Amino acid sequence: MKLWQKENTVTSEKIERFTVGRDREMDLNLAAFDVLGNLAHATMLETIGLLTPGDLSALKSQLRVIYADIQSGSFTIEEGVEDVHSQVELMLTRKLGDTGKKIHSGRSRNDQVLVDMKLYTRARLFDVVKATEKLFSILTRRSEEHKNDLLPGYTHLQIAMPSSFGLWFGAYAEGLIDDVIQLNAAYRLANRNPLGSGAGYGSSFPLNRQLTTDLLGFEGMHHNVVYAQMSRGRTEQAALSAIASLAATVSRLAMDVCLYNSQNFGFIVLPDDLTTGSSIMPHKKNPDVAELLRAKTNRMKALPMEVTMVLSNLPSGYHRDMQLLKEILMPAFDEILDCLDIATFMLEHMQVKTGLLNDPKYDLLFSVERVNELVIQGVPFRDAYKQVGAEIGDGSYSPSRDLHHTHEGSIGNLQTAEITTRMEQEVAAFGYGKVEVALEKLLNS
Amino acid sequence: MKLWQKENTVTSEKIERFTVGRDREMDLNLAAFDVLGNLAHATMLETIGLLTPGDLSALKSQLRVIYADIQSGSFTIEEGVEDVHSQVELMLTRKLGDTGKKIHSGRSRNDQVLVDMKLYTRARLFDVVKATEKLFSILTRRSEEHKNDLLPGYTHLQIAMPSSFGLWFGAYAEGLIDDVIQLNAAYRLANRNPLGSGAGYGSSFPLNRQLTTDLLGFEGMHHNVVYAQMSRGRTEQAALSAIASLAATVSRLAMDVCLYNSQNFGFIVLPDDLTTGSSIMPHKKNPDVAELLRAKTNRMKALPMEVTMVLSNLPSGYHRDMQLLKEILMPAFDEILDCLDIATFMLEHMQVKTGLLNDPKYDLLFSVERVNELVIQGVPFRDAYKQVGAEIGDGSYSPSRDLHHTHEGSIGNLQTAEITTRMEQEVAAFGYGKVEVALEKLLNS
Amino acid sequence: MKLWQKENTVTSEKIERFTVGRDREMDLNLAAFDVLGNLAHATMLETIGLLTPGDLSALKSQLRVIYADIQSGSFTIEEGVEDVHSQVELMLTRKLGDTGKKIHSGRSRNDQVLVDMKLYTRARLFDVVKATEKLFSILTRRSEEHKNDLLPGYTHLQIAMPSSFGLWFGAYAEGLIDDVIQLNAAYRLANRNPLGSGAGYGSSFPLNRQLTTDLLGFEGMHHNVVYAQMSRGRTEQAALSAIASLAATVSRLAMDVCLYNSQNFGFIVLPDDLTTGSSIMPHKKNPDVAELLRAKTNRMKALPMEVTMVLSNLPSGYHRDMQLLKEILMPAFDEILDCLDIATFMLEHMQVKTGLLNDPKYDLLFSVERVNELVIQGVPFRDAYKQVGAEIGDGSYSPSRDLHHTHEGSIGNLQTAEITTRMEQEVAAFGYGKVEVALEKLLNS
Amino acid sequence: MKLWQKENTVTSEKIERFTVGRDREMDLNLAAFDVLGNLAHATMLETIGLLTPGDLSALKSQLRVIYADIQSGSFTIEEGVEDVHSQVELMLTRKLGDTGKKIHSGRSRNDQVLVDMKLYTRARLFDVVKATEKLFSILTRRSEEHKNDLLPGYTHLQIAMPSSFGLWFGAYAEGLIDDVIQLNAAYRLANRNPLGSGAGYGSSFPLNRQLTTDLLGFEGMHHNVVYAQMSRGRTEQAALSAIASLAATVSRLAMDVCLYNSQNFGFIVLPDDLTTGSSIMPHKKNPDVAELLRAKTNRMKALPMEVTMVLSNLPSGYHRDMQLLKEILMPAFDEILDCLDIATFMLEHMQVKTGLLNDPKYDLLFSVERVNELVIQGVPFRDAYKQVGAEIGDGSYSPSRDLHHTHEGSIGNLQTAEITTRMEQEVAAFGYGKVEVALEKLLNS
Repeated sequence: MKLWQKENTVTSEKIERFTVGRDREMDLNLAAFDVLGNLAHATMLETIGLLTPGDLSALKSQLRVIYADIQSGSFTIEEGVEDVHSQVELMLTRKLGDTGKKIHSGRSRNDQVLVDMKLYTRARLFDVVKATEKLFSILTRRSEEHKNDLLPGYTHLQIAMPSSFGLWFGAYAEGLIDDVIQLNAAYRLANRNPLGSGAGYGSSFPLNRQLTTDLLGFEGMHHNVVYAQMSRGRTEQAALSAIASLAATVSRLAMDVCLYNSQNFGFIVLPDDLTTGSSIMPHKKNPDVAELLRAKTNRMKALPMEVTMVLSNLPSGYHRDMQLLKEILMPAFDEILDCLDIATFMLEHMQVKTGLLNDPKYDLLFSVERVNELVIQGVPFRDAYKQVGAEIGDGSYSPSRDLHHTHEGSIGNLQTAEITTRMEQEVAAFGYGKVEVALEKLLNS
Repeated sequence: MKLWQKENTVTSEKIERFTVGRDREMDLNLAAFDVLGNLAHATMLETIGLLTPGDLSALKSQLRVIYADIQSGSFTIEEGVEDVHSQVELMLTRKLGDTGKKIHSGRSRNDQVLVDMKLYTRARLFDVVKATEKLFSILTRRSEEHKNDLLPGYTHLQIAMPSSFGLWFGAYAEGLIDDVIQLNAAYRLANRNPLGSGAGYGSSFPLNRQLTTDLLGFEGMHHNVVYAQMSRGRTEQAALSAIASLAATVSRLAMDVCLYNSQNFGFIVLPDDLTTGSSIMPHKKNPDVAELLRAKTNRMKALPMEVTMVLSNLPSGYHRDMQLLKEILMPAFDEILDCLDIATFMLEHMQVKTGLLNDPKYDLLFSVERVNELVIQGVPFRDAYKQVGAEIGDGSYSPSRDLHHTHEGSIGNLQTAEITTRMEQEVAAFGYGKVEVALEKLLNS
Repeated sequence: MKLWQKENTVTSEKIERFTVGRDREMDLNLAAFDVLGNLAHATMLETIGLLTPGDLSALKSQLRVIYADIQSGSFTIEEGVEDVHSQVELMLTRKLGDTGKKIHSGRSRNDQVLVDMKLYTRARLFDVVKATEKLFSILTRRSEEHKNDLLPGYTHLQIAMPSSFGLWFGAYAEGLIDDVIQLNAAYRLANRNPLGSGAGYGSSFPLNRQLTTDLLGFEGMHHNVVYAQMSRGRTEQAALSAIASLAATVSRLAMDVCLYNSQNFGFIVLPDDLTTGSSIMPHKKNPDVAELLRAKTNRMKALPMEVTMVLSNLPSGYHRDMQLLKEILMPAFDEILDCLDIATFMLEHMQVKTGLLNDPKYDLLFSVERVNELVIQGVPFRDAYKQVGAEIGDGSYSPSRDLHHTHEGSIGNLQTAEITTRMEQEVAAFGYGKVEVALEKLLNS
Repeated sequence: MKLWQKENTVTSEKIERFTVGRDREMDLNLAAFDVLGNLAHATMLETIGLLTPGDLSALKSQLRVIYADIQSGSFTIEEGVEDVHSQVELMLTRKLGDTGKKIHSGRSRNDQVLVDMKLYTRARLFDVVKATEKLFSILTRRSEEHKNDLLPGYTHLQIAMPSSFGLWFGAYAEGLIDDVIQLNAAYRLANRNPLGSGAGYGSSFPLNRQLTTDLLGFEGMHHNVVYAQMSRGRTEQAALSAIASLAATVSRLAMDVCLYNSQNFGFIVLPDDLTTGSSIMPHKKNPDVAELLRAKTNRMKALPMEVTMVLSNLPSGYHRDMQLLKEILMPAFDEILDCLDIATFMLEHMQVKTGLLNDPKYDLLFSVERVNELVIQGVPFRDAYKQVGAEIGDGSYSPSRDLHHTHEGSIGNLQTAEITTRMEQEVAAFGYGKVEVALEKLLNS
């Protein structure tokens, strides 16, 4: 059953499968948000006289029943029903007859999809933020734990200067803050109300769009109705760009883990849970988990391109092409959450090796310390640099392994507290608490 | 159960889910090819004394049983079995005991995955070629049907010169030939035997790799064992690049259909089966099928990038990252075949409008005809060009609508026969018949 | 001359060309910022005793001379000098001898490149914001000018509902706000001080990084020194993602212009300046400017991918690969600014056609108006929808062309003031004024 | 001066700069090919009576003068002349008056650009093939030189099995064969004659397209004129995909070099020419050349995406957008040739370390040898695998370092001759000799 179906149309099964695709499966993700959108729309319709108070009361009560079904997992999209929006409207109409038919006044299906997608994306982005905070938290904890465990620092994959596990873990922690900043930009694009834009050209009904904006806890509305429709795709693009950025952070971490776990580096030990054997080499303990984490997060970096491909050179106005974006966006949320979870687990259980820098092959790491020692004694930097180069050349170089790095962010001064405060501020900037209050109120009042 | 599992390893369920992922589902696609690989490997092992004739005979007969199970759809990968290779080996070992254990001599699991992937990719690429031929065939048929139905030709989306439906359909037909050429390059990369390369470093057994190459109908082998392993990912990349190219052809066709179906062009009519209505606009007949065809094929253009993302900067040697490539490649074959099928259906049922150029708004299409008329009368081209420009400017331009285009590939001389011959030659160049003969023989002798 | 050059090294010209590449050309973009970084670093070095007050005073005065040279265009990177950092240090050393040699204490060249790139990117991103505001301003002006000029609204490229030039121009204006939000996220990543991170592992000198952070007007520092180095590439990636997003907005606008300019739409007229002729068709006025605008902005959408390609799977720590990012980022700023300028010019000079909806082919645009009329008379929405569908079917449909769209963001209520206020707020959020004050002070005190 | 310029048009300088862009610079690459296209077109025009024999003779002689100018480097595109096609026509008209004006009969500028681009791309692709052969040649030479120098083989970046420099160099050599196969597919797309397709809709003149096809040495023609035009972009895309594939091979090689050059691997030594120092660490010898080679080739992997971005969702028919493709394609040829040259140089001068596997940390590389020893003694593979696992566990594992790998493509049997033969066959398949003969004849007869 399709709400728009013409009597004389026979849609073949092949076409049905091609057009509906994975849409019904995807749409289950929207069900709860569709009820919220319906609640807000109905509440507003009553204020402009398109529903009676009785209609509204009946609709609200039925919508809450549906919401409870969704929460309990018993809600389904019936065979032959095209999407979640049709399913909800069908359930209302079955129970309430003409009242159910009235709720579509002043909106279009595009409207519904849009508002559901905004609510969904907003919520999922914040889920990603919360999972990112967890990973951040384990990274800072391990950074503090291992602040005195030195690690060779590399540039150009060449031995460079002393680093530490404290610095290494802490670097990825701080990197996540920048990811949260990018997630926030995407969140702000999602946090705008498109409801009332109809099919992208508004409506002749005197809708009160500010009211639905407030009821749904949006930061504001997409004012221009043509733009509201154009935000379809953009919101997904922004969300996936932010996810791709976060994925890039995780993939680089996974690359480091794979490298540091190689016998030629030997800086960390992965627990057996995180390694697998080989079908022919009895000695192998392969870091498959880290490798798959790297591969999955690397693959995610192509996601924004998928959206770009679909949207490129589409003129303004809705096109059915945009339906496909659900299949790109929704699994991406599951995947990034899964990857963040595994990364957190891996970082909790990874062991680090101590005393690494005692190996004489790392002597050269201390050459800059020697240069700086001379500088402090008054030798100009460029001359000290040449002198140490000469010492290395003639074999007289003999480094002290004492380190006194004290400035902000250096080995001896990790500034974990400052970094943690920044993360807290960036997360607070989402203002997600207000969203939760608004939705709670909408559902219960 | 994993064949390589160490006694002291407890793999948690979370890790299991993350590492196995969709791999078991994907692996079902490889089952038939795994049996073929096993048949070739066992046959070869017997020739170098690592299997007795009795072992070989027993293995062959069991492998045929498994192959029959696969063909009938009753083959499954059991709960707890990691992949299709382990499942087949397990089934052999259950039935044949020590003989089953011997078959892994001289190869590694990487070897098996690689050879299965080559056989799978080779077969699926040819499936795509066959579906492309079907689309080609409907395009050439419709091109001939409508060779006299004129169509405005555009450059810069501006009315330019007369075209025809014959030219338009025929253009896409000819374009598919170039796609087949690119598919062939990918096919040739897939049509190389990696078996015997082990984990990428060969084996101390005196394997006869030419024998397995011949048995499996490969064009030749990947000689260097390190390169055989490095071809992992490249083969997928080449296949997906060729698929992306084909998808681009289809997406452009779909874009034309969406545009030509707009009331502002009005060149074609889509049957009701291929259109859908709107939830608020009672007059709508939207070309959703063409739009989704466009979107799906556009999305596919990002596929090569996904592989690139996974492979970038991985040093030589196998990495578990490569497992993820299955999930990128395999659904892509299903998707492109689906899209080719729908495109073929759409082109069969689309109606074209006739007499389009009689509309006076298309008068200017004939300006070059007028220029050429003057040139034939002896006016130098650049002067004729200026004269017609002046005629248009002062309103004296009055085009004849007679067209005499006779050169190769023009409106009056579509060269459908020549184009068809080229397509036949390109398809013949795959030599897929020889592959079928070899595999048939391997299965039955 | 290279500051690090070893006596025994002979670098062949071929290698020189390959490694230096376009780097010296690119580096000219950094010159002014390099002086600022030097001023801040020197000021800080004096506070920790690594420069005497006399050294500092001499360095400041020489740096101001160099800054003046840069402003006047007379600064060059001399033949044989590797980069801008070496050039500046060389100029200081020539004038000040040992004092010039001391300024590199406590930093590395990576440090310098990083801080220069941050300062450069921050400044250029704000240039983009200012150019975006200009485009916004012309869009809102034209939106208001043409608020009563109706335009067919399309969905699926099918005639859908009435729209207006007011809505169309205004939609792109509002879209730019979301681009500015994404630019701001990138700006915040650029607005962090990396100075003091050395080669990525800090320094044994007691640097005061908060001081240089304040002197350079940064929002804060990259605390962790390893992360400071890892932000290389990320900053570029974020900037290019934001630019790509803005480019996508412009490319869609250009696509609309090309389509609306086609004779089959005929909604706008481009002035002769913005069209070109054809070498064979004397009647053509092609919208080449809009097409190139579309092409250039579309191409820019691949920019983030270029950075991703370079960075993928590089382990942590600096790699020379990152040098190449300059060649990706810097021309992108020029290109987007050029495109914004041309888009602004095009929108100023484009003429719109009036009275478009009087054409009977647009009758169906009003079907929803008719449905809503019935709904207001009390017919449930779904029944009204069916009734109008029947009217269209039997030919009795005869639309009134009266429109009363009054809700927020609809044809009759464009909310240009609200949209303008939002843009102003988003631009103010950059706090660029504070940056200008800090840099002014650093240069002059 | 533009050949199509209308009297009443004043094109502002800003627009001029935006539309012409780097086109004149790019067009110099096409000059020689433009002359060839002119020679073929004129020769054909004479056969159909649109030029007199005298016209043809005069044109040929002038075109040869221009060709000589191009070869000697004295040809330029004059200030104010839009492109190379206009320049050549202008030079002909200056010398020959009306005869020069006649040569544009039966073709359009799109035609000219297309045929020039096909000829250019065909030639440049073969240049890439030749440079690839050079790299192949040094790789096979070094493979043979070092066939007895063992190298640890890795899987999962974990020590796996013995490999050799012979295998490692040889693997990249064989990989280049697959790149050549992909280059050939692109070459075949370029090797089709579009001349005679006009602006994409053919011509009313009785052109003889087979004649120009033969004269220009093309494999055949793009028959359908609409398709000829649609091949614009596709040809570039195919060429860039093949280049990207080759770049990926080189980038992986460069990644291996960077890794093997790290002190933690220490498998190779780069000569001083190929390393650079650090501004603060006096001990550094960084592999900057290999890193930049990696970065540049990695960046090139985004090139096909740039073309895709420009072409996506453009309806059929020429659009000015396609002009931008020159700027993507042409520098890519220079870049890949440069990278191949540097890679060849690096491989010639790199030193490999010998005796690497004597280090006890590589003992485990031989575990499969030990398993296979047991298998040969009659132990079933899976049992032998377990036994060696136990030996490793209890410390009794003591590997022999003898290796007897003899099968095709293994350490002891590199099959360099077979691999070389394959490369020769693939290069011969281009049939470029015939092209050279045809062009030689066209120029001189």
